[in-house]
Parts: sequence; structure tokens; C-alpha cells
Amino acid sequence: MLQAALRSGAADRQCTFEVFARRLPQGRRFGVVAGTGRVLEGLESFRFGRDELDFLAERGIVDDATLDFLAHYRFGGDITGYAEGEIYVPNSPVLQVTATFAEACLLETFVLSVLNHDSAIASAGARMVMAAGGAPDAGGRPCVEMGSRRTHEFSATAAARAAAVVGFSATSNLEAGRSWGVPTLGTAAHAFTLLHDTEEEAFTAQVETFGPGTTLLVDTYDVESAVRKAAEIAGPELGAVRLDSGDLVAQAHEVRKLLDSLGNTETRIIVSSDLDEFAIAGLAAAPVDAYGVGTRLVTGSGAPTASMVYKLVQRQNSAGAEAPVEKSSPNKASAGGRKQAVRGLDDDGCAEVELIAADRTVAETGYSGRELQTPLVIRGIVQPGHTGQEGVLRAAQQHRASLEELPAAAQRLSEGEPVIPTVFV
Amino acid sequence: MLQAALRSGAADRQCTFEVFARRLPQGRRFGVVAGTGRVLEGLESFRFGRDELDFLAERGIVDDATLDFLAHYRFGGDITGYAEGEIYVPNSPVLQVTATFAEACLLETFVLSVLNHDSAIASAGARMVMAAGGAPDAGGRPCVEMGSRRTHEFSATAAARAAAVVGFSATSNLEAGRSWGVPTLGTAAHAFTLLHDTEEEAFTAQVETFGPGTTLLVDTYDVESAVRKAAEIAGPELGAVRLDSGDLVAQAHEVRKLLDSLGNTETRIIVSSDLDEFAIAGLAAAPVDAYGVGTRLVTGSGAPTASMVYKLVQRQNSAGAEAPVEKSSPNKASAGGRKQAVRGLDDDGCAEVELIAADRTVAETGYSGRELQTPLVIRGIVQPGHTGQEGVLRAAQQHRASLEELPAAAQRLSEGEPVIPTVFV
Repeated sequence: MLQAALRSGAADRQCTFEVFARRLPQGRRFGVVAGTGRVLEGLESFRFGRDELDFLAERGIVDDATLDFLAHYRFGGDITGYAEGEIYVPNSPVLQVTATFAEACLLETFVLSVLNHDSAIASAGARMVMAAGGAPDAGGRPCVEMGSRRTHEFSATAAARAAAVVGFSATSNLEAGRSWGVPTLGTAAHAFTLLHDTEEEAFTAQVETFGPGTTLLVDTYDVESAVRKAAEIAGPELGAVRLDSGDLVAQAHEVRKLLDSLGNTETRIIVSSDLDEFAIAGLAAAPVDAYGVGTRLVTGSGAPTASMVYKLVQRQNSAGAEAPVEKSSPNKASAGGRKQAVRGLDDDGCAEVELIAADRTVAETGYSGRELQTPLVIRGIVQPGHTGQEGVLRAAQQHRASLEELPAAAQRLSEGEPVIPTVFV
Repeated sequence: MLQAALRSGAADRQCTFEVFARRLPQGRRFGVVAGTGRVLEGLESFRFGRDELDFLAERGIVDDATLDFLAHYRFGGDITGYAEGEIYVPNSPVLQVTATFAEACLLETFVLSVLNHDSAIASAGARMVMAAGGAPDAGGRPCVEMGSRRTHEFSATAAARAAAVVGFSATSNLEAGRSWGVPTLGTAAHAFTLLHDTEEEAFTAQVETFGPGTTLLVDTYDVESAVRKAAEIAGPELGAVRLDSGDLVAQAHEVRKLLDSLGNTETRIIVSSDLDEFAIAGLAAAPVDAYGVGTRLVTGSGAPTASMVYKLVQRQNSAGAEAPVEKSSPNKASAGGRKQAVRGLDDDGCAEVELIAADRTVAETGYSGRELQTPLVIRGIVQPGHTGQEGVLRAAQQHRASLEELPAAAQRLSEGEPVIPTVFV
């Protein structure tokens, strides 16, 4: 596309591409924008190096003019978008890229890859945190991200970051700690118990190393016997026991009773084992103190991609005038023109509608609400506050504020319609 | 785990960990091992650098003895496994890692991440290629991988590689071409048509750049009108037209008729638009020449992870003797002992059973079959032939041979039991 556009001369036309999802995954009531910080971090190093250029040249994939363009590529346009952590609904213009066609079209795959993956994880994770009663400082039980091994090795790190955006308390992925300051937490696997001659030796080794406050995994052999050993070896200060299999509700009750009878009233119970939002909700009445969530989080709990698209909505024509453009095929039609979006709020500050205007501002239509788009990149310069650890912390705040603004129906895990309607004004 | 094991002294015990899936995704009849080459490529650079060590030290995540171990880490053990591309069923020991506990336990997350992701994509992709009639040189219609934008930016590259292993003809992911020699193929998006003042200008620009053999996207506005323009601009040598929306079966028939009436009898029809194995099967009788597959491939067509686990099955005890180990909790029980696996074949060479023996060879039990495990790493040295482009080509051959050996039921897309039973002998 780039080569043909460079040749036709259209590559230099100013364009606006918009990222949006035509629909939410089946039955979901809202989505969560995540990955914005990673897009901006990646943008700063989005270049074509010698290895890439040599490959393209040797295989004859593009011509010399295109190679030359790529060798000097550096994004110099503008990007506006929903703040990371913000709620979105169908057709929300979550990101807008304005630049020449050549500059903007090269970003498509990277931008969509990041937003589609991270938003899918965040959208699933937000429901898990809701099912756990909200963030811990709001009275919820902590959720810990433990899914690295069930997804691609780099998706794993991004998933840990997305989980932090929606209120997960910690991750087992150390690289997410290193890259974005996400709190990390280790755990012992069954292999650690099996490695030692006896369960007592394993527990003793762990307690001697980390002190009694550690978390002992008690379902390698017999749970009751393991809990007794754990309490005996670590004493009343045993931090937690973890259950990773079986009927977690019944076991949590039994283990709680047993721990209390042994004097371990402060020892917490952590459960894991293919938990999703529904399993977490099913454990709400059980004496559980924290959830370890893996597979179902990192695979988006049934919706592994957010299915966002990157569509050209406006461009200069041959006369240099800006003009909206849209597909008119009967399916996959999209609305032309650069959009502005605000969240319409009722008198109590509760979200009631996603208002979207094309080619003018929402205010010009007489409607009002909270503006959702914020400048992220101005003339190629990434704006401060969105990347690194700061970006994740800020996104987590944004997420909580945005979620609290939604109507109560947002809290329902059952399948339903988007919690607020999208209205083009 | 590592720190506690170093302290207890158990870290030096020789261990064997096995990778297997307890079950196949719902209704799937077989799985495909993929990612082995990537595991081996990653193993060669699996080190802890200064940045990682500093992070662990500054945060106090591990103690000095552990930091010292990590700083000198280099895998020196043995790895045996199913050849990449091979079919697997529940409990197939697809990879075995034998080393000290310290060396082997550090690989768990990396090994599982790669195998779980790549095998999920390959297992889905194999069904798509089957639905397309097999590989092109066996009479099938080519499948092209176009899903990069719907998954994490690095998963995308691995997905393109996994698709090549199961017979996809090409990918739109250029990095997969650069890294592993996967054939690449570009395409024009709707944005390219919309960018130009008219569809004619866009088609003309593309044909002038790439010649008449290019593929023109004909569903931006009106399909019939676009096909007529395409044929007029490119002439009878127009390579292909692509349909990306709507009722593909009906449209393919109409477009074929129209192309033929215009004298474009050699112009091919390529379809895309959320295709999965079922949609491809539904197009078998339509005049379609190739399939562009995206979202459903890179998300595993409903099964985004292979759910493989990495379990300790054997280790030295405190007396230095090798002993099988296994969990005995009622759920998630696993079989102890190092396994050998062969595929039992009937007199016609058709696979009929997956035979697995623990702590002895299958031959010692009186059974026979094709041996499935091959040495991949010997004393830390990666064996030749499994990595890079060579590895992908070899895996693709392995996959075809292994698939051809399966009973006819393997070709069914409907939900069913694993195509061959797993028998522990």
C-alpha cells in the first residue's frame, strides 16, 4: 500500500485514522481501553533498522523509493485518544491518528496489536476485580495475576500490565515489575513440594527461607494433613495457604475451620485453579482471602481480542481539501469524518450515553458531557504521563473513576447489552 | 522456589519435568505440537542480564546466593520431545526437561508460554488447512495468514510461524519472513481505496505499481462496479480480486460469473472476513481460490491456549536415587515417572493408539510403534535442524506425515473424542 501510494502521490495526503470496536464481545456490557502507554512507548522506537531494510531489499518486497522512505521513517503526526483505563462501548473512537497516509498507515498493525490484546485482557480482568468485590482498598479481595505460562511469552508481560490497570494487586511476572513497576509476588508450585523427600521438608525449607509469613501450597497430597503440617511448622504466624484444585468452596470452609481450630486465625486462604469472573463470584461467600487468576485472564475469558479496527475516516483529496470518507459496502460500513466523543452524564453524574459527533464538536449539537479524548502525541512528541510506571498508575485511577461513573448494570456478569448506548449526534 | 531450594540443598537434585496437556480443547480430535524451534532458539539466549539482576537485587526479590546463581545461569541439561509439527493427544509427553531442579524450574514459564501459544495456533490452523482441502500441492486451496493486528505484536510473529508449520502458504507478517523465511504476501486495505479520490484512481495506482497480476480489493463501495473497473484497468491478466465482507458464498458465485463474462477467466477470487475452519468448509463448493485468515487463527479458533503443564515427574531423593513423584490430590493428579511414548500403528500404517510407558520403554511392555520422542538438547547443546527456517520446513513435513497417518475421523470438524486413545502401558 505504501509503495503504491508513494507512486501515486497520495501518500502525502493528510489523513485521520480512527480505532474503534464495532461491537463488544458477546454479552459484555463494557470494554476497557488498555495498551495506550505501550503504544506510546513503542512509537518512540518505531523505526526500520538495517536488518529489516536489508530483508525488504534482498527479497525485493518494496522498491528503492519505499526503502528510502522507511529508512527515514519517524512518526511526526498527532495522536488523540481515550485515556488508558477508560471504559469504551461500540464505536467509541478510542484512538485517532492524524498524519500523512504514509506515516499513519505504517502504524496500523502495531497500534491494533497492542490495543486489541491489552484491551481484551483489561476488559476481562475488570469483571474479575468486580466479582472479587472491587479493589482491595475499596473492600474487595485481592486478585493476583498468575497466567504467564498460558500465553505467548511477551503477551504475558503485557497481560500483567493490563491486569494492573484494572485493579489486580500483583503479578507473578517479574518482567512486568521491572518494566512498569507492577507489584510482583512469588508462589510455590507443586514441584517444590514433590522435589523434597517429604511435604514437611518442603514446608520447612520454604519457611526457613522466607519466614512464617509465606504462603504454603497445601494440595499436593492430602489437604487436611498439609494444613496441619503447615500450621505446626510455621506456627500461628503462617501467612497463607493456597488451594489449587478441587471444590474450592467446600475446601475453603473446611480449611478455614481447621486453621481456626489450630489457632491460625490470621492465616489467609488463597485459591487458584482456572478461575474466571464467574468462579470468583461463586466464591464470594466462601472464606477466601485472595484469588490467583491465570489462564482465563490472559486469554480474555472467552474474548481473546477486542476486535478493534483502524479505519481511514478523513483525508485530503487531490485538491488539498479535507473530506470525510467511508466504505459503503452493505456490511462493515463505517461512519466517515473525524469524531468527537463525550460521555453524557445525568444529574447525579452517572453515565447514560456515549455521544459521538462527526465533523463537528458534540457541543455544537447542543449536547454536553465529559470529554473522552485527550492529546497523546503532538507533532510526533509523546505527551508526558502516559508511559512507564506513571502511565500504569494513572490508567488504574482513570479506570476506577470511569467504572464508578457507570450505572449499576455494569456490575452484572450476565450477558447483556452495552451498559450505555452509543448515539451519533 | 529457586531460593528456597538452593537453601535446602534440593536445588541440585537431578529432575525430569514433563510437558503435556491433560485434555484437548472441547471437542478437538487432535492437537499439533508447535513452538519447539522457538523454545530452542530462546534457550540459547536464556540468560539473566545486568538489568534483570539489578531489578531483583534492588527490590530485594531474591537473596545474594540466588542472584549469583542467576548471573551464571546457562542451561546444561537434556531436552527430549515430540518433533515440532507432530500430532499430540491428551497426556502425550510432548517435552521432557532433565536437569538439576534449579536449572529446569527456571525454564517452566518460558517453555510453557511458547508451547501453549504456538500449539494453540497450530492446532486451530491445521483444521483450517484441512477444511481448505489440504496443502496446495495436495490439491487444497491456499490459506494465507493475515491476523497480526488481532493479537499481541509478538504473538503475531509466532502465530505466522505456527501457521506455516501446519501448511499455510504465506503470511502478511514480514517479521516472520525475516526471522524464519516464511513466505510473505501483501494486500491492499479499504483505506488504500478510500485514500484516492476514486476507486479507479486507487486501482490504477496499484496496477501501475505492481502490474496486472496484483490483487484488487473490490468491496469498498459496490462490488459489481468494482469488478468491472478492475477488469478494465488491469485487463485479462488481473491476478485476483478480494472480497472481505458480506455473504461470501453468494458473492463468489456472482463475481466468478462476472469475471468470466468479462474475459477474466484466469483471475482468482480471494476471500477473507473472520474466516474459521467452519466458514472455510462452508465455502468449499464456492468458486473461491484462496482464503485470507486472521482473527480466528491467531486466537486459536476458540482455544487460545493449549493448556499444557510442566510437571515434575521424577527426581533424585536425598539418598541420590532417582524416584518417580506424583501429586495425589484427588483433582489434577498426574502420573509419576519419566515416560516413553510411541504411536501404535495398524497393519496399514494407520495410527490407532498413543502408547505411554513410565519408568521403562514401551518395547519392554511388548507393544511397538513409531517412537515419538527425539533428542532436542544434549548437555545444553541444541541439536541441529530444529531452529530457524530449516526448523519450520522440517516441522511442516513432520506435520503432514503425522496427519496423513491418522484415521479418517481426524478430518472431521465436528466435536468428538481424541482421534486415537491414550493408553498407559
